Order: sequence, then structure tokens, then C-alpha cells
Amino acid sequence: MTEPTLPREDDEAVYRRQGFGTRLGLSGSLGLLIVDFVNGFADPGSFGGGNIAEAIQATTHLLAQARARRWPIAHSRIVFADDAGDANVFSLKVPSLLKLTEHSPLSAIVPQLAPREGELVVRKTVPSAFFGTGLAPWLTQRGVSTLVVAGTTTSGCVRASVVDAMSFGFRPVVLSDCVGDRALPPHDANLFDMDQKCADVLTSSALFESLGDGVGAQPIRS
Amino acid sequence: MTEPTLPREDDEAVYRRQGFGTRLGLSGSLGLLIVDFVNGFADPGSFGGGNIAEAIQATTHLLAQARARRWPIAHSRIVFADDAGDANVFSLKVPSLLKLTEHSPLSAIVPQLAPREGELVVRKTVPSAFFGTGLAPWLTQRGVSTLVVAGTTTSGCVRASVVDAMSFGFRPVVLSDCVGDRALPPHDANLFDMDQKCADVLTSSALFESLGDGVGAQPIRS
Amino acid sequence: MTEPTLPREDDEAVYRRQGFGTRLGLSGSLGLLIVDFVNGFADPGSFGGGNIAEAIQATTHLLAQARARRWPIAHSRIVFADDAGDANVFSLKVPSLLKLTEHSPLSAIVPQLAPREGELVVRKTVPSAFFGTGLAPWLTQRGVSTLVVAGTTTSGCVRASVVDAMSFGFRPVVLSDCVGDRALPPHDANLFDMDQKCADVLTSSALFESLGDGVGAQPIRS
Amino acid sequence: MTEPTLPREDDEAVYRRQGFGTRLGLSGSLGLLIVDFVNGFADPGSFGGGNIAEAIQATTHLLAQARARRWPIAHSRIVFADDAGDANVFSLKVPSLLKLTEHSPLSAIVPQLAPREGELVVRKTVPSAFFGTGLAPWLTQRGVSTLVVAGTTTSGCVRASVVDAMSFGFRPVVLSDCVGDRALPPHDANLFDMDQKCADVLTSSALFESLGDGVGAQPIRS
Repeated sequence: MTEPTLPREDDEAVYRRQGFGTRLGLSGSLGLLIVDFVNGFADPGSFGGGNIAEAIQATTHLLAQARARRWPIAHSRIVFADDAGDANVFSLKVPSLLKLTEHSPLSAIVPQLAPREGELVVRKTVPSAFFGTGLAPWLTQRGVSTLVVAGTTTSGCVRASVVDAMSFGFRPVVLSDCVGDRALPPHDANLFDMDQKCADVLTSSALFESLGDGVGAQPIRS
Repeated sequence: MTEPTLPREDDEAVYRRQGFGTRLGLSGSLGLLIVDFVNGFADPGSFGGGNIAEAIQATTHLLAQARARRWPIAHSRIVFADDAGDANVFSLKVPSLLKLTEHSPLSAIVPQLAPREGELVVRKTVPSAFFGTGLAPWLTQRGVSTLVVAGTTTSGCVRASVVDAMSFGFRPVVLSDCVGDRALPPHDANLFDMDQKCADVLTSSALFESLGDGVGAQPIRS
Repeated sequence: MTEPTLPREDDEAVYRRQGFGTRLGLSGSLGLLIVDFVNGFADPGSFGGGNIAEAIQATTHLLAQARARRWPIAHSRIVFADDAGDANVFSLKVPSLLKLTEHSPLSAIVPQLAPREGELVVRKTVPSAFFGTGLAPWLTQRGVSTLVVAGTTTSGCVRASVVDAMSFGFRPVVLSDCVGDRALPPHDANLFDMDQKCADVLTSSALFESLGDGVGAQPIRS
Repeated sequence: MTEPTLPREDDEAVYRRQGFGTRLGLSGSLGLLIVDFVNGFADPGSFGGGNIAEAIQATTHLLAQARARRWPIAHSRIVFADDAGDANVFSLKVPSLLKLTEHSPLSAIVPQLAPREGELVVRKTVPSAFFGTGLAPWLTQRGVSTLVVAGTTTSGCVRASVVDAMSFGFRPVVLSDCVGDRALPPHDANLFDMDQKCADVLTSSALFESLGDGVGAQPIRS
């Protein structure tokens, strides 16, 4: 592998000239997706490290806000079968993922972000929280237009979920302080890619400043 | 956006320790996917630049080999409707994409890689060549197990297609000399991510060395 | 094949007792999907016959109403590649479908239902208008909650599209006078199945009676 | 609802003339999908009745054969969350489905067909065993070409799964004695539709006669 090098000034100019990086803005009803904030990804001895602990901390505030505003809220977990009968190409590439079984503490959502009644929890065996799950229909049924995304890792499951969110017709907003990665260069590089091509990347404080007190609150359609 | 910084030595050690980056290897029948090598992405005045021209050049050789070995071959193009009736979140984020209409020269596959009879060409309006297209069933029906990927851009449609290829059950092989991007830092960063998490990244010469003369050739099942 | 027999009185009682057939009702914004009303399916000498002509006639009125109310409107066509490079299991089962190529008059939408600017037209090579197309994201992006469905054939592409509409989170309304089939027993049997399990089946006049003058009109979100 | 009427002789002639009903045949490696044979659908007091008990009985023999021949084997169950947080349009249409929670005996696979190690079990909240699950990638990864289908109900989840199996690129074989429904007219009508448009419908004894002793056996690719 070639070592990544710093983007030159003119690389970003190329993106601008070619029309990338337009702001999507906050449109319609908001929803929240929290990707894979489970014990195994909070633990640097397992799949964690880098800035993930800080991202979890920032997400506790975000989640409280989302609940207060009654956004539809979804969580994802990676879960493989106890007998690895659903082993796949992802687990061939990263065999340690097979430890994330249903009842392993590693695959449990961190206590500070534990799901509440009415929130969706999807199990997945691939990076995207949308692929092979009921997430997109669930958001569609609840009228979500703009999907706020937190979770880990920025360069893996968050990125894959954000690309799919966009492809399924939602406007992704990635909160830079609420997503984390085990290594910062991939974190930064993926925030750059997403901000240019598939999401608005902003801080959670910038998001709530834009929203003000009442905006974004809505009854859950069912 | 924070500027990406160089990965420290110990970042890669973290990936190794956590179990990332295992080799998938070449398994079963091979297929080829060429992502978005169209005139608009070959032209630095439009969506091109960087190392895309070299990647197209390298792909002409790859394509000849794939045809000689009778691999199933698929191409993708971004195509929006003439009236932009299918405008979506991707085209909100990158409005210039709406120029890629059916009969615009910008959306035509570059002449040196023009599809032949029996090859699949999918139109898409999102990054992944799999999303909202018939690509996965087409590959499944032809018994493809390992999917060799070329195309552009490494940090956009190639990356999204490779993640989906893996999720759909194919083993992706990304040829580092046959994928290109308008800027090298995102190119390098995305090769790193894919090699760690969803694909084997190798050069086309390394691929053909592994394959030897006869391996990978097979009749197309129909 | 066993000959279908008439359902006994107590069969429907079983459905009721087990909880099937609840009314979904008209909820939120409405959209319209017209499935495969192309020349080839209007022509009894090709894929048509039965009550398809009457269904097309009823759909012209429906489409005018939908346009007046500014519903998002989508059409589907079966289109195979000129070289049959995308031949699939569906075309193995029904080889005559391969005649429905891009420029064949058989695959053109009937003139009285010709799409207008801003309406979506999806090409497909399988029964469902959702599978391998951008239809679900397009409806999601436009905030559609209830999807009115017309088209042909009731027992084939309409049925498959209605099941997928439900699975993607939309409430399907099948208009019994605006869907048609080449043979009436499958038409009736599939209306029964859909009404019990995945859609409200009603007549177009009942739909417009429920809607009244203004309900269901909304600006297209983009 | 109009009462279904018996198909006239000439209806089937129309299908033949228009090119429907071609035999797919048994091609490549075989796999087995057993749809929703859970206690709740075995019990006439819950979702069962009709010929479902006989279909389960016939499927025990089929499953033994499939295991002896080492086919990849997948099972599906309908499972809704304990808090109904994933309630959807399907459960609006059939509210009693919400009783099928993870630990309810109703959602457990019948004992005589209990899954073994290495077999896939997918949870779903919609009719198709493919929609929102990892089934298609799992079959693709194992090189399945022809998918034998058993389960219930013929007119609901079996039909939806068979349509999706075809769309995903597998050749469906529906075993008429191994699929069951709570009412026979829908059972028969759906066997007719599938046999014409998306599957070969045959008896399990006809299948094993075609296969002989050794055909269809293969190692599981992983």
C-alpha cells in the first residue's frame, strides 16, 4: 500500500470546480441512526480505540436530544450466528468479527446508549446498517427525510451506512464529533469523502444551532 | 474539515492486532466489473483528472485478458433522465451529475473499453453499481465468486461498489492500477480502507501472475 | 397442476379469524405507480388479453386525477438489452419477454398513458417494479406514504410490485378496475391474496370518493 | 371481492401461446429454502390449517435428503420485536403477526424441522425470506444455482420468496407437496402462477427421480 499523502490545496479546488460538496441542508422530518456503538467497538482491546470513546460520549447528548424531539431512532449491531453459519465475505476478511454473537457482551450496545422501547435495533453481518435489514422501510414508514448519523467506525460501517442512506433517498447528516474510528487518518479521510459526495458533515452543536428549539420535532407516523 | 494527517506506524498495527486485512484469495469463477469509465470521468475538465487516464489505459489490457478468459464482464454508467425526473440526493449533493444523460457523450463508456455483445451495462444514479440495478443477480446467475473491480473513482463509485460486492457475497479484488481518482490522497486512503475491510487490493500484474494461463477461465452459465 | 377450485365460505372465515384483511386506509401523501402498461401487454396477440384493455381505459382517468392532484407518478416497463446480455431466470421461464427491447414498440408505454416530464420511468427485467430499480428511493424522497397501484398483470408484475411496495414501507392501494390480466381467474385470485395480506383493494371511484376534492394533493418534495 | 372462477380451458392456451411456462430445469448446485414452517403456522388455531400439516410431513423427508446431499439449507421465521418497535405495513394489514416474537413458541421452527449447525436461519418481518435479510448473499456465496422451496403459505410468504429467488438469479423449484396453505383455492392459484412465471412446480418425488442418487451433491463453498 502506498502511504496516504496530504491533499494538496488544488485537490479541493478540483472538487469545487467539478461540482462536489453542495450542502444538502436539513429538510423535512429528522431521524437518527447510531451505527455499531457496542461494547466490542468501545474497547481498544477488541475493535475500538482512536476517538471512539469521545464519540460515544458526544452521542449520549445527541441521543437525549433526539428522544426529546421524538425523532425515530435506530441502532445497529453486528451479530453473527453462534455456529457461524452465516459467515460471509466480511468475516473472511475480518475473522475476529465472528466473536460478535447474539449473547456476547461484545455485541451489546454500550449501556449509556441502550435502546428504549419503540426504537429499532437491526442486526447485520455487513458494514451497512441498511443492507439485509429492515432499516430503510422503517425510516420510510416514519416519514424520515434527513437522517442524522452517529457511530463507528467512520471509515467502515458509518461510511457504508451513509452511502446507502443517500441511495435509499434520505439526506445524511454525519456528526463529526459523534462518529469515531480506531485510527484518525481514515476517520478524517472518510469525513472528507462523505462531505464531498454523500452527506453534510457538521458538528452536533452546529446541528442543534440550526435546528433551534422546536424544529425537527414531529410525531412518529405509524 | 480537519486536514487528513499521515497514518502513524502504530495505526496499521492496530488493524493487524484487531484482525483486519486477511487475504480473501481468488476463489471459484472470476468476473469483471468496470465502474463508470465514461468520457465525463476521463476528462479532467469534467469529472476526471488525477490518475484516471492511466487507470483506463491499464484497464484496456485487463479487459482484453478478461475477454480471452471468458469472464462475465459488467460495466456501469451514471445516467440521469433528460428531464432530471430521477434527480436524487446524490444529484443534490453533486448537481453537475445531472449532465450525465442517456445520449450525452459524457455518459458514454470510453471507446477503448466499449462493451461487447453479451456484456452487461447497468445504468445507475447512485455510487454503487449494485444499488438499484440487476448486477448482483446477473453475477449470481453466472456463478461468479470472485469479482475483479476496475474503474473510477476509487473514493466514490468504486468504493461503494466494492462494499456492495462483498455484502452481496462476492469476493472483491480491487486492482490498484486499474482504479483511478481525481485526487490521489482519497485514492490512497480508500485503497487502504478496502484492503483492510472488504477486498484484496493488488496490481493487475500480480493478479495475472496468480492466475497463470488457464485459471479463472470458465464457460458462461446461462 | 390441480385445477383451482372455488373458495368455500369457510375459507374466508379462516382468514378473518386469523387476523388477515385489516384495512390500511389512506395515510399521508399519495403516489401512483403504473406497472407495465406498454403496447405489448395491451395487445392480445402479444402479452395482452383478458380485461387489460378496460384497465388501461380506467387508468387514463386515474392518471389525469393523479396529475391534477400533483401526486408523484411512476411508470415501469420491462426492457431487455438488444443483445439479450441481461437475459435472466425470468426470461428463461418466459422467453418471449426478450422481445421487449428498448426501441421495440412492444415495450413502449401505451400512448394514452405516455409519461410526462417529472414522472419516473423505470426499466426492469423482473416482475417487481421495485427490484433492481430506483423506485423505492424515489418515492421515499418524495414523501409518499400510500401508493396507488394500477397496471398489468394482476397476477404477475402488479402482484410482485405490491408485495415489494409493502415491504419497502408504503401502504399499497390496488385499484381493481385499473389492474388487468390476460385471464380472469388469476386476476381474481391475486386480488383476493393482496386484499388479505398486503394491500387495500378498492375501485378507483371508491378511492376518489374517500379522497374528496382536496385530500392527497401535495407539493412534490425535491 | 369478485369470487374467483374456474380458469377456462382457453386461459391456459393463452399462457402457452404467449410463451409462459417454459421449464427451467435443474441447473448447477442445489440449495433448499424452507419458509416459515413454525409452530404458529402449523397450528390451525393460530395461522395454520388447510394442507400445511401434510406439507410439513413431506418436508421432513425432503430435509433429510437435502442434508444427506449436503445442500446449503436455509430456514425463515417471521419475528417481530417484543415491543413491536418494528411494526410495519405487513403488521398493519395482519396485526396478529405481532404475536410472533423472538421467544414466543409460535415463532419457533417446528421440532421435526429444527435447524442444524451450519444451516441459515433468517428472521423477517415481511413475506419474502429474501427481503431485508442476508439470504441472497448466503446462497450466492455457496454457489447455489437452483433453489428448492418448501414452506408456508403458498399464497403468501412462499410466493413472495419464490418471486425474489428468481429475481436474485436463482432457479426456483417449488415442491407442490412440501408447500401448504390455510385454504386450498389460493394454494392452487399460486402454484399455477408460479409454474407459469417464475418457478418449476413439481412433486418432491419427481424432483428426486430427476436427481437420481448422486446429482446435486456438492461440498459447501465457504
